[in-house]
Amino acid sequence: MEPSIFTKIVNGDIPAYKIAEDDRYLAFLDVFPTTKGHTLVIPKQQIDYIFDLNDELYLGLMAFAKKVAAAVEKAVPCLRVGVAVVGLEVPHAHIHLIPLNSMGDMNFANKQQFSKEEFEEVQKKIQAEL
Amino acid sequence: MEPSIFTKIVNGDIPAYKIAEDDRYLAFLDVFPTTKGHTLVIPKQQIDYIFDLNDELYLGLMAFAKKVAAAVEKAVPCLRVGVAVVGLEVPHAHIHLIPLNSMGDMNFANKQQFSKEEFEEVQKKIQAEL
Repeated sequence: MEPSIFTKIVNGDIPAYKIAEDDRYLAFLDVFPTTKGHTLVIPKQQIDYIFDLNDELYLGLMAFAKKVAAAVEKAVPCLRVGVAVVGLEVPHAHIHLIPLNSMGDMNFANKQQFSKEEFEEVQKKIQAEL
Repeated sequence: MEPSIFTKIVNGDIPAYKIAEDDRYLAFLDVFPTTKGHTLVIPKQQIDYIFDLNDELYLGLMAFAKKVAAAVEKAVPCLRVGVAVVGLEVPHAHIHLIPLNSMGDMNFANKQQFSKEEFEEVQKKIQAEL
């Protein structure tokens, strides 16, 4: 199987603004964010479709995402953190955690651009809440 | 606390195209769907924000949603079932399970209208896969 872009991030072959990590899961900032603080949570194992994860790995991923979402919510001004799993682009299951202030913040057609300094600033803020 | 529209569905005060139910969770068709088969999964307990559910209730909800998603995927022609939790409208946590054929199917600005007969048909198809 061809390693996905996320597997390359897991392996350190591609840099990422990592937020949290354990032996099975990784969270890092989406570099094509809809809002500042937009974070991706993945299983390190490369499985394309989230509902193909076995129950144990799937529920572990959801528990990991809940912890990360709580930190994102504290670190980034927002009404709440939204969740999306689409999966039509990268063939490696990933949960989008998106700080929301309006419905439009969930619109993947509205990507924002941030500088390296801005990404690093929000990365540090979220990490400080974990 | 004012009962939410979803609590009224749980209590049978408002009709719904129910898909699956146990003592803690309920799945039913979204009557403002983005695609045919668009299903909502809720905890019966009225809690506004999904990440405010305690871990046990939250993980039970996620496990319930996985089962429903598998049935939706079998019943409705789609590439996969997408997941969204927004929660800026109804103050009762709910997971959208959306049969996807393209990114646009996740766009909440694109609601579709179906007849009662169409809703009942897809309801029966999904139930048959459970």
